[in-house]
Amino acid sequence: METTVRNKKTLAEQTADRLTETIMNAEFKKGQQLPSEFQLAEKLDVGRGTIREAIKILISRHVVEIKRGTGTFVAEKPGQVEDPLGLAFIKDKKKLSMDLYEMRLMIEPQIASLAARRVTKEGMMKLEASLQAIEENIAKGMPWTDEDIAFHETIAEASGNQLASTLIPIIHSAVKVFAYLYGKPLTETTIATHREIMDAIRAKDPERAEIAMRNHLQRNKVYAEHLRETAGENA
Amino acid sequence: METTVRNKKTLAEQTADRLTETIMNAEFKKGQQLPSEFQLAEKLDVGRGTIREAIKILISRHVVEIKRGTGTFVAEKPGQVEDPLGLAFIKDKKKLSMDLYEMRLMIEPQIASLAARRVTKEGMMKLEASLQAIEENIAKGMPWTDEDIAFHETIAEASGNQLASTLIPIIHSAVKVFAYLYGKPLTETTIATHREIMDAIRAKDPERAEIAMRNHLQRNKVYAEHLRETAGENA
Repeated sequence: METTVRNKKTLAEQTADRLTETIMNAEFKKGQQLPSEFQLAEKLDVGRGTIREAIKILISRHVVEIKRGTGTFVAEKPGQVEDPLGLAFIKDKKKLSMDLYEMRLMIEPQIASLAARRVTKEGMMKLEASLQAIEENIAKGMPWTDEDIAFHETIAEASGNQLASTLIPIIHSAVKVFAYLYGKPLTETTIATHREIMDAIRAKDPERAEIAMRNHLQRNKVYAEHLRETAGENA
Repeated sequence: METTVRNKKTLAEQTADRLTETIMNAEFKKGQQLPSEFQLAEKLDVGRGTIREAIKILISRHVVEIKRGTGTFVAEKPGQVEDPLGLAFIKDKKKLSMDLYEMRLMIEPQIASLAARRVTKEGMMKLEASLQAIEENIAKGMPWTDEDIAFHETIAEASGNQLASTLIPIIHSAVKVFAYLYGKPLTETTIATHREIMDAIRAKDPERAEIAMRNHLQRNKVYAEHLRETAGENA
């Protein structure tokens, strides 16, 4: 059956599939530059025109991307578009902002709990580095939104659930773009609640990690609501 | 600031943005055919070449799609690609299958609980129709995977959380594509556990809805694991 389906595809599509496989096998790694058209044509034993067509297909599938003047690269997140959930098309951004918090409260405490169960030594080191990066930026008075996102992403990775590590960055990017005042809640509270989450994960205490994450999110949510109300309807 | 950014865009990009706005305002609805290039050019007061360029941009953003021989249509889910999470690029599909169940267990019981709190009369009618469609297909010995997905989607809609109604179809489509034996668990159990979820939502009992959904998913998960084990490593 696989063969029948495959035979209906053009040579360029077949070539695109073969290139996708090399990326899935990590022969070409995420973010890595692809070899030249000439080299790819030799490697896959097809013409350069076919390679060019195949690359176009992979661009449309967001598997590779062109960086002008440098070449073609494997995407950092192959197959993922910038706003994969199409949230830009949700019109009521105020409600979306609340929905994002509600979703985070559904999912992140449980992810923290899984992280406490499954975190590895390397994961723990990454988490500590990530927390330190936030605190350093806060101390220097610099923005720390991206470091904050990285902290939550690292917890999702530590959870060992691949869906979690795919979804959390997407949800957090959406929070950054669509929600009110991400990254501006009281910094002292943030430092304390982040530390509490990390300590619970280090102690491999799932319940404590879950509660710590819930507290952290609740505080941010309440703060965001408060700011929104004081800013009024037009904020 | 908005203006500065906008001025850096080409006329085609600006036109694409304006068309996107008309879609967001539901002037052009999801799935609807767009007016002709000529009409759009008149409406937006730009040349037909600009309209053509703008449409190309919107195709690459998955906002509109060409149906050969018929015309250009607003996408059913504007901005969303087929596999928005790029799950096809996760190599270990067996683990992905378990991760999908784990994620469903994190998120769907809470969504059911929200649905019990917030369901409207129309939502309840939709849910009943959706459950009936599953049972009819089961009775006729027909496949009912899509009806099953629709049932869980309807619950997500009833939850009132837009993230939930975006994510659930994505997760369920992934289950259909990547997980083992979706839609083949014991039909009698499925009928009973689905009914229990619906009754709890109708009774507006959040705790009972949460537990019913957890039971439903646990049973399916156990059954999928069992089938996988009996099928062996090569299944």
